[in-house]
Amino acid sequence: MKIALAQINTTVGDLDGNTKKIINQIEQAKKQDANLVVFPELAITGYPPKDLLFKKAFVLENQKRLLEIQNATSDIGVIVGFVNSYFRERASDKIYDMAAVSHFSDMILTNAACLIDNQKILGIYEKIWLPTYDVFDEKRYFEPGKEAKVFGFCNKKIGINICEDLWVSNGPIIQQVKNGADLIIVISASPFFVGKWRIRKELVKKQAVANRVPIIYTNLVCGQDDLIFDGGSFAIDAQGNLIALAKHFAEDLLTIDIDSPMPVKDTEETEEFEVFNALVLGLRDYVNKNGFSKVVLGLSGGIDSALVCALAVEALGKERILAVIMPSPYTSEASIQDAKTLAQNLEIELLNIPITEIYNSYLKTLADPFKGKKLDVTEENIQARIRGNILMALSNKFGYLVLSTGNKSEMAVGYTTLYGDMAGGLAVISDVPKTMVYRLAHYFNQKAGKELIPKNIFIKPPSAELKPNQKDSDDLPPYETLDEILNLYIEENKDREEICKLGYPKDLVVDVIRRVDRNEYKRKQAPLGLKITPKAFGFGRRMPITNKFQ
Amino acid sequence: MKIALAQINTTVGDLDGNTKKIINQIEQAKKQDANLVVFPELAITGYPPKDLLFKKAFVLENQKRLLEIQNATSDIGVIVGFVNSYFRERASDKIYDMAAVSHFSDMILTNAACLIDNQKILGIYEKIWLPTYDVFDEKRYFEPGKEAKVFGFCNKKIGINICEDLWVSNGPIIQQVKNGADLIIVISASPFFVGKWRIRKELVKKQAVANRVPIIYTNLVCGQDDLIFDGGSFAIDAQGNLIALAKHFAEDLLTIDIDSPMPVKDTEETEEFEVFNALVLGLRDYVNKNGFSKVVLGLSGGIDSALVCALAVEALGKERILAVIMPSPYTSEASIQDAKTLAQNLEIELLNIPITEIYNSYLKTLADPFKGKKLDVTEENIQARIRGNILMALSNKFGYLVLSTGNKSEMAVGYTTLYGDMAGGLAVISDVPKTMVYRLAHYFNQKAGKELIPKNIFIKPPSAELKPNQKDSDDLPPYETLDEILNLYIEENKDREEICKLGYPKDLVVDVIRRVDRNEYKRKQAPLGLKITPKAFGFGRRMPITNKFQ
Repeated sequence: MKIALAQINTTVGDLDGNTKKIINQIEQAKKQDANLVVFPELAITGYPPKDLLFKKAFVLENQKRLLEIQNATSDIGVIVGFVNSYFRERASDKIYDMAAVSHFSDMILTNAACLIDNQKILGIYEKIWLPTYDVFDEKRYFEPGKEAKVFGFCNKKIGINICEDLWVSNGPIIQQVKNGADLIIVISASPFFVGKWRIRKELVKKQAVANRVPIIYTNLVCGQDDLIFDGGSFAIDAQGNLIALAKHFAEDLLTIDIDSPMPVKDTEETEEFEVFNALVLGLRDYVNKNGFSKVVLGLSGGIDSALVCALAVEALGKERILAVIMPSPYTSEASIQDAKTLAQNLEIELLNIPITEIYNSYLKTLADPFKGKKLDVTEENIQARIRGNILMALSNKFGYLVLSTGNKSEMAVGYTTLYGDMAGGLAVISDVPKTMVYRLAHYFNQKAGKELIPKNIFIKPPSAELKPNQKDSDDLPPYETLDEILNLYIEENKDREEICKLGYPKDLVVDVIRRVDRNEYKRKQAPLGLKITPKAFGFGRRMPITNKFQ
Repeated sequence: MKIALAQINTTVGDLDGNTKKIINQIEQAKKQDANLVVFPELAITGYPPKDLLFKKAFVLENQKRLLEIQNATSDIGVIVGFVNSYFRERASDKIYDMAAVSHFSDMILTNAACLIDNQKILGIYEKIWLPTYDVFDEKRYFEPGKEAKVFGFCNKKIGINICEDLWVSNGPIIQQVKNGADLIIVISASPFFVGKWRIRKELVKKQAVANRVPIIYTNLVCGQDDLIFDGGSFAIDAQGNLIALAKHFAEDLLTIDIDSPMPVKDTEETEEFEVFNALVLGLRDYVNKNGFSKVVLGLSGGIDSALVCALAVEALGKERILAVIMPSPYTSEASIQDAKTLAQNLEIELLNIPITEIYNSYLKTLADPFKGKKLDVTEENIQARIRGNILMALSNKFGYLVLSTGNKSEMAVGYTTLYGDMAGGLAVISDVPKTMVYRLAHYFNQKAGKELIPKNIFIKPPSAELKPNQKDSDDLPPYETLDEILNLYIEENKDREEICKLGYPKDLVVDVIRRVDRNEYKRKQAPLGLKITPKAFGFGRRMPITNKFQ
């Protein structure tokens, strides 16, 4: 039996576009003589559809698209993810009910997979394990499925799993194999973080060997707001060998003969490769799916904006980038020169818009209310906000998307200006720690075989250049140490005592944690940031702002 | 038996402060000869603790506080909400596990109530129905309780319910009454929206009558970020009569003799009373709990900023308000005069900081990049952003909290400037539709018995005054119509066809819905806004930004 893994790039809410793509892939799979073509989780709606699921019209439209797909499935089998629903008596378990307060209680939804063969629906499997952690909210929308069904198809007995189902040790696979399943097919939408693809494969190998059954794993590939789905669909035989591997970070239609599988070599790529390509995909999809012709960003002469610029060129091409250098009285000549060299190397358009005159007009206007007060961070923030305003003005005038360039280390400790350098529609590297920023910039130069990002940008000490002789190291611990502590606190969720026990000075740990905690209010208003670590700020980390716990 | 309803104002994460308050109230209740004192849901941690629940130290500290409370409970009974937990073998249902990705799988949490009598724990009830809709995420954190227990206390058999438990028709009350419960005690943290207190009482009456059992309902009272808990704890006898009613929007310790109850009169208050007082509580608690000495806001001479100013005076007192008028070339003399009169009437400090010079410096600086382009919304946004920057500069220099003044109607259709009038730490009326803004302003004047908000502010046509002769009605439908359509779309979750069928012109409905949908990106970066309707923008409404569904 030949199975095609249809690793497609869906868009949330684009029922027409997703359906068209699915039907097109079914035709392609037929040409490759596939018996069965498998699509990702919720392929019809895109993932995650979030509160669109509270719109009945959306749910019912998604089912109309399933019928279209059914009709297009002649002489081939298809497994496709969709939202199943059934009506029930209103208010069956709610005394008080209001559409907006709870979800509509007269309609139950499940996260489902439909197995279609030659225009007939052979079976529906409904996801049993609904994740409700990190960025996932599936219990907000779905009822869990109840049956670990097995479906006969092409002389095989197939057990379908949907994503999380396979990540638990007591999932449906056990019952399915007991009931005779000789092939497990997983449809998933598994968001990227660095190292995730290896974790996914280890997991599936473990399950295949433990249950003595081959497993086919189809993943989504796309950027959707903060989330990146990295593709890399694959198959593992019952002995734990990798027998198929689709592309990472790109669409693919990979056909495998499950009856005569051949081991394939796993990719060996660096973390830098992974993260760089993930960011490129996330950036490209956000810009294109939201209909922007170009992006605009500020170049400071520093490493963060240089990396974002490089990512944008990679994602969109040099013609779609407008870079702006906005020198203030505290901007060094070296920074201006570094930014210019970078723009030349990348062959992108560069505007030079000095902010000194605007800055002076603020100082003059505020002289009276600020009388008797010393210069402080206020004046630094004014500079950052003028730059934010200029980028937004260019965005308003020309319709370009503003990319913000802050990294995760800064965002964590609040070393960043709300409405200033935080302004923008997409925070490209807000989940990338500073130390990883350098690694990605090196990777970019290495890939190009030349120093597109000028050497000087790597070696000069990081500075916000918002007052004379300012350096990040005046206010922050060295980034190597800071990033280690941040990783322990945010991603590994360790507390103060646990981190101190690892050998970090208590004062430093206390200070870093205090900074992270008290900057929730800033991050509340941050733009969407692309998630590349197990725990990003944003939707997957829901901290109260009013919070006295220390 | 005398029961004291301890309606306290807790703060999330303030384990010490909350515990101190609980112990103090126990002492007070003793003085009132109460046999039992009842606290709200999760009283020890504050509600909602959100991802603080993923910190083991937080969970264990909350239990240490329970022990303190236990020790303080001599010669009286107490029911107090806390987080219960038990350890289990790590990875029992997860194959792959990482602290940050899922919640710690070696510790299970429940949302629990502890019944203590004279320093002994008599029983623990664990919430069975965990809400996961709107602003609620309880399945993200808690396992559901399994037992509808009944506890003997003081010759009564008591069934405890926690909030949502009572809102479902097949909740624990049925089993508890079957098992002999002759009193139901509900501990809750039920967030406010307009009309909620009536809904709550109707619900409890229904349950009391249907199950022939008296019900005591203790609610939280506080502002916590976007949520307002309005208090109004109460009791209903088995015949459905109201037999106790605590204060709304303030702490209270109300003792009731459950064996000889007397019917009490229900409050009859207007919607304006409810919403006004809710906003005052939410604003006051946000400012005070986050440690701000003062607030600063811009006065435009319009109704929105006038109302926010009035609310701030009511919440904080006139000494804690700094108002700023920031005229541009398009600000009318009338607006300046209206703002001045308002500030005089409210006896608050008013700064006048004209923005024309700064505005001109932007125009000059941007003349070159904008060459050949017409004036458009860009220049309007620049004015709004200069104002945002000035308020933020005052905030940075003096440590005041910036209040933003946009209403829900504007936020819905994006008639608002990101980083401009949207700038601030708290969006006081961002869930208040424009038509309700006028009603609240009238209510404020009525309450004062004089026109503190000048009449002219009510009667002039709303305008952003960002270009000559601009009026809101140039760009938007009349607010009466707009608010009706917005209510149907957002709060009643109706779709385009359903709204059109109610008699609104299709073009208008399509336009309004399109505006709401395409402005998700702005609202993503909005400050926290106080929730006063069943469906506020923000945490309880989770829409994708990249979204092609129409």
